[in-house]
Amino acid sequence: MPGTVQSIERAAAILRTLAGGPGRLGLSEIARTLDLAKGTTHGILRTLQLVGFVEQDRNSGQYQLGGALLHLGTSYLDINELRSRSINWADPLAARSGESVRIGTVLEGQVLVVHHVFRPDDTFQTLDVGTLLPLHATALGKVLLAYRAGGVGVPMEIERFTRKTITDPKPLAAALEGVREAGFAMEIEELTLGQAAIAAPIRGYGGLVVGAIGISGPVERLCDSHYRPHPKLITNVRDAARAVSRDLGATR
Amino acid sequence: MPGTVQSIERAAAILRTLAGGPGRLGLSEIARTLDLAKGTTHGILRTLQLVGFVEQDRNSGQYQLGGALLHLGTSYLDINELRSRSINWADPLAARSGESVRIGTVLEGQVLVVHHVFRPDDTFQTLDVGTLLPLHATALGKVLLAYRAGGVGVPMEIERFTRKTITDPKPLAAALEGVREAGFAMEIEELTLGQAAIAAPIRGYGGLVVGAIGISGPVERLCDSHYRPHPKLITNVRDAARAVSRDLGATR
Repeated sequence: MPGTVQSIERAAAILRTLAGGPGRLGLSEIARTLDLAKGTTHGILRTLQLVGFVEQDRNSGQYQLGGALLHLGTSYLDINELRSRSINWADPLAARSGESVRIGTVLEGQVLVVHHVFRPDDTFQTLDVGTLLPLHATALGKVLLAYRAGGVGVPMEIERFTRKTITDPKPLAAALEGVREAGFAMEIEELTLGQAAIAAPIRGYGGLVVGAIGISGPVERLCDSHYRPHPKLITNVRDAARAVSRDLGATR
Repeated sequence: MPGTVQSIERAAAILRTLAGGPGRLGLSEIARTLDLAKGTTHGILRTLQLVGFVEQDRNSGQYQLGGALLHLGTSYLDINELRSRSINWADPLAARSGESVRIGTVLEGQVLVVHHVFRPDDTFQTLDVGTLLPLHATALGKVLLAYRAGGVGVPMEIERFTRKTITDPKPLAAALEGVREAGFAMEIEELTLGQAAIAAPIRGYGGLVVGAIGISGPVERLCDSHYRPHPKLITNVRDAARAVSRDLGATR
């Protein structure tokens, strides 16, 4: 892309490599992965270390992500309007549906979870904020795909997670058409066996879809015996999505 | 610093400016704040936008932090050994003490909270992970300062938060000497009126202090009528710190 700064693109690629890897990587490994000269890579890593984006392990000399990224990530959340407007509606949705709630937006062809309310019971749950989920195999992602949030399109390679994951472009296009017609999306065991999800679009100023809000939980709680989602839960999710959209300034 | 890449340092400065600001900033404002040419700033912002570290508001044209930072921040947490080793000990500490627990490390002369367990009751609490706290006015920070975690030193300017904040270098040095002698730190109303905290050092491989774990809560729960911390709570905190240190490979 003209007018961009190559060293910054390379620095971002190094950070993505570290985030996608096993935790720590050595200089040679990073340079080889990104097809960069070792000297170039070392200069970028030194700079990333200086600004706190990368830390070097004292013993092994290997590199890992740095704490400054955590602070920047938290700052992103603090100023994220989709999240701040959603928070007031996510808690009641979890209470009414009895299921966990997630709010997602598009990042790099995936769903970025920007808010997560635990299922209202005492079971152990892990906070999903900051996690990336596949677009085609989640209800949140289908909503984002159906309305092309952030200009996102169906990825070229569609990964299979279970026997029910929709991996063929034609059925996927039909499913997305169905989402637009119904105004909500669902997913049954397409990402994880035994789990289902329902999601609806969040519209921002001007009516464009900027995110999705949804619930997920066991199939037997979200669906009836014919694998159809309970109408009450659909209503809960759509009501929450509309409330957030209204707060974001979307008009009907 | 020789051997570093100027454009990456500038990019990091832009991200820090956005994180410290009101949320969104315009091109001119960013360029002026960092004393950079507008064209240079624009090129860096375009690149940061390309890699998802920055987003541009559709309506105002202003810039804000991007979602890729949230994902990188979460990835930092996932691979952070201090955090992963602490999690198993932070929950029991919260249960035993009845107070909220935080685990901190040093970032840019402040305490970076890498883990936070809510006080075990049903009151509304906000997750502090990713937040930066002052070193001199928190128990966590005093521990990190006392043992020079990450080579950190007393800052030149010591901010006052309450009447009790220790802002003079000499009393602060004496307090830090006391922390090293006692093996734990405390703070009473030095950051927030009515609040107190107790923290102890977490040692990593080789015995170096790499972080701190502590509890915080109302003064009347943490202290007796003479403003002395309850010995049982000190023991709880120190036991947790020792358990984490052992898991991190520190020897006695």
